[in-house]
Amino acid sequence: IASRFPEMGTTIFTVMSRLAAECGAVNLSQGFPDFQAEPVLFEAMHRQMLAGRNQYAPMAGLPELRQAIVDKVAALYGPRFDVESEVTVTAGATQAIFTAIAAFVRPGDEVIVFEPVYDSYVPAIETVGGKAVHAQLQFPDYAPDWARVKALISPQTRMIIVNSPHNPTGSLLSAADLDQLAELVRGTDIVILSDEVYEHILFDGEQHASLCGHPELAQRSIVVSSFGKTYHITGWKIGYVVGPAALMAEFRKVHQFNVFTVHAPSQLALAEYMQDASRHLGLAAFYQEKRDFFRRLLADTPFELLPCRGTYFQLASYAGLSDLPDRQFAEWMTREVGVAVIPVSVFYADGRDDRVVRFCFAKQEATLRAAAERLCKAF
Amino acid sequence: IASRFPEMGTTIFTVMSRLAAECGAVNLSQGFPDFQAEPVLFEAMHRQMLAGRNQYAPMAGLPELRQAIVDKVAALYGPRFDVESEVTVTAGATQAIFTAIAAFVRPGDEVIVFEPVYDSYVPAIETVGGKAVHAQLQFPDYAPDWARVKALISPQTRMIIVNSPHNPTGSLLSAADLDQLAELVRGTDIVILSDEVYEHILFDGEQHASLCGHPELAQRSIVVSSFGKTYHITGWKIGYVVGPAALMAEFRKVHQFNVFTVHAPSQLALAEYMQDASRHLGLAAFYQEKRDFFRRLLADTPFELLPCRGTYFQLASYAGLSDLPDRQFAEWMTREVGVAVIPVSVFYADGRDDRVVRFCFAKQEATLRAAAERLCKAF
Ligand SMILES: CSCCC(=O)C(=O)O
Ligand SMILES: CSCCC(=O)C(=O)O
Repeated sequence: IASRFPEMGTTIFTVMSRLAAECGAVNLSQGFPDFQAEPVLFEAMHRQMLAGRNQYAPMAGLPELRQAIVDKVAALYGPRFDVESEVTVTAGATQAIFTAIAAFVRPGDEVIVFEPVYDSYVPAIETVGGKAVHAQLQFPDYAPDWARVKALISPQTRMIIVNSPHNPTGSLLSAADLDQLAELVRGTDIVILSDEVYEHILFDGEQHASLCGHPELAQRSIVVSSFGKTYHITGWKIGYVVGPAALMAEFRKVHQFNVFTVHAPSQLALAEYMQDASRHLGLAAFYQEKRDFFRRLLADTPFELLPCRGTYFQLASYAGLSDLPDRQFAEWMTREVGVAVIPVSVFYADGRDDRVVRFCFAKQEATLRAAAERLCKAF
Repeated sequence: IASRFPEMGTTIFTVMSRLAAECGAVNLSQGFPDFQAEPVLFEAMHRQMLAGRNQYAPMAGLPELRQAIVDKVAALYGPRFDVESEVTVTAGATQAIFTAIAAFVRPGDEVIVFEPVYDSYVPAIETVGGKAVHAQLQFPDYAPDWARVKALISPQTRMIIVNSPHNPTGSLLSAADLDQLAELVRGTDIVILSDEVYEHILFDGEQHASLCGHPELAQRSIVVSSFGKTYHITGWKIGYVVGPAALMAEFRKVHQFNVFTVHAPSQLALAEYMQDASRHLGLAAFYQEKRDFFRRLLADTPFELLPCRGTYFQLASYAGLSDLPDRQFAEWMTREVGVAVIPVSVFYADGRDDRVVRFCFAKQEATLRAAAERLCKAF
C-alpha cells in the first residue's frame, strides 16, 4: 500500500525523547516540565468526575471553561470574545493548529510560515494539499523581515502562521511587528493563525503582543493557546482557540469531525483553577528564574547562549566547539555527554544549519544542575 | 473570507442535544450514558496525577495502556498485535477515524461508505480532498449488498469504511460478510477502516466479527475502538486503533501532527481498569437488559421497533403515526412530546427518508421510563 506521505518522518520530539530514555541522558530536548502541578487541580478533577461530569462536553467546550478563557483574554488583551461563538476548547494546541489549517487551507493554497518553524505546521499544511512558503528568521536575533514576507505573498496565499513567543528561538513579535503584518494583509483575504502557547512566558518585563489585542489583525486571526504550558500539565493535551465568529464557525466545521470535543473533567478542573489569575500571571517570574539559573550554569561552558526573551527554551551556538552538523551533534550530546537537546536545523526546509541547539529549561534545579555538570565535565 | 466548506453544517448530535436542552426534553438523541462510571476509575486517575504522570505521553500512547489493549484484543479475537508498532491511543474514536482517513486518502481518491453513515466519515473524507461513494444498507434489515459494493469499486477506490455493530441501525456484520469483503478487495491496495466502537455491545448471544480476527482482512485494516462507549465515560474522549505495522506507521505520520498524544492520566487509569475483563465482557448483558426494558416500555406506542442486534441505539419506524419528514418529526418530538431523538435521513447523502428515528437507550431506567411516559401520553 503506497504511502501518502513517503517523505514524512517521525517528529523530532519523539526521536530525541526516545533516544534520551535509551541513553539515560538528562532530557532537555522535548519541551515539558519535570516538576509537579498543584494538587488542588487534581482534586478539582477528581471531584468533577465523582460528580458525574464524564460525558461529552458540548462540541465547542464546556461553558464554564469558555467563560474563564474569555475573561482571561479580556483582562490581558482587551477584547471580550463571545463565549458562545468565539472560543473553542481543543485537544491541545497541536490539534488546534491542525484543525485551523484544515478549516481554511484548500488544495493549492499557500501558507507562509517562519523558519525555524515548529514541526507540525508544514505537515499539517501538506495533509490538506496546501503548500508551505518559507520566510526565514535569521540567526542570531531571529527577527522577521517584513519586506521579505511581502515579497512572498501571492494571490494563492491563504494563511500566514505566526508564533510569539517563538519556539525554538525565544524571540518575540513586537507591537510594531503586528502593525507591519496588518499592513501587509490589509485588503486581502489572508487568515492569520497565531500560535501563542507561550503567551505567559516572557522575560525582563516584556509584554506579550497578542494578536487578540490588535484590533485590525484580530478580525482575521485565530489565536491558539495551551493549558499544558501554562499549568505544567503538558500531558493533559488541552488548549483553545479564540477568534471572530465567522472564522470560528469555519474552525468548528472541521473540529466537530476531527475530535468532536475534549476531555470533560479536565475542562471543569481548569475552569476552576483559572479563577486565580496569579497562576498564569506568576509564570513569567517563575521561568525567568529558571532561565537565569540555567544561563549561569552554562556560563562556564563553551556554548554561546543566544538571547532568550520568552518560552522555556534556550538556544545555544556550539560553533566554537564542534564542526558536526547539528543533528549529529545533538545525537552525540545525548549519547556521549548525557544531555539530550533539539537540533535547530530540523526546523528549516532547506536543512540550513547554524550550529545551534535548543535546551529546555522547564526543569527542576537539580535536573538543570545535573545537565550542567555533564556539560562542564565534557567541555 | 470564503468558506472552504460552504455546505457543511453542524453535526446532528450537537443540534439535537442543544434543542433537547432548550426544550427540557428527555435527551435520547446523542449517544451517551446518563449514569455514572465506577469511582475506582476516578481514584486511579487521581492517584496517577498525584504521582506526577501529567506530562506528554509517548506519541503512540503510554506503554501500560498499549499493553492492556493488545492483551484484550488477543484474548477476544486471537491476533497479538505488537505493542510498539501496531497500536496507537487516540483522542477518541472520531479523531482516530479522521486521522486514518487523512493518512491514506489522497485528493481524488474514492472511499466507499455504507449508508446510513455516521456523520463524521464523509466530512473527514472531503476535508482531505477525497470523494465518498455510497453503498446503501436497506431498511428494514440494513444488510450489506456485496454485489452492489463490488460494482462501486473502481481504480480510484482507496478505502472502504465498515462499522459493526452499526450506528445507527444496530445491525451486525457476520463472519460471512467479512469473507465477502475479503474477496472483493483481494489483489487491490484498498485499505479497510473498521469502526468497532460498539464491539462489546451485542445482544442475544451474537459474537462480534472483528476485522482483527479475520486473518486476511486484518492485514489491510485499521480497527478503531473507544473507551468512552465501553466504560461509560464518553466525555473522556479516549480511543485506540490497532493494525499491521506498515499501516500503523502511516497512521502515526498524521496522528503526531494532528493531536501528537492523548490525555496521560486517563491512559494510566484505563490501563489499570482494563485489567478486570469482566468490565467489558459484562457490557452486553448490561445493555441487553436496557434494550429489553426500553422495548417493553415502547410496546404500547404506535412506534414500530426495528431489530436491534448491537449498539445502544434502537431504531423505530413512525410511518404508522405521522407523515412528517424525519427531521421535522424529530424536532416535533423534542419540542412537543419532550423526547429528543435522531432522524435517520441525515445519514444519507440523498436525504432518503424511511420515516425512522433513533433512540439511545444508554440511560437509567428512570430516564427511559420518563421518556416512555411522554410517548405514551402523546400517542
Ligand atoms: C508536542 S511534543 C513537543 C513539545 C514542544 O512543543 C517542544 O518541545 O517544542
Ligand atoms: C460524537 S457525539 C455522538 C455520539 C454518537 O456516537 C452518536 O450519538 O451516534
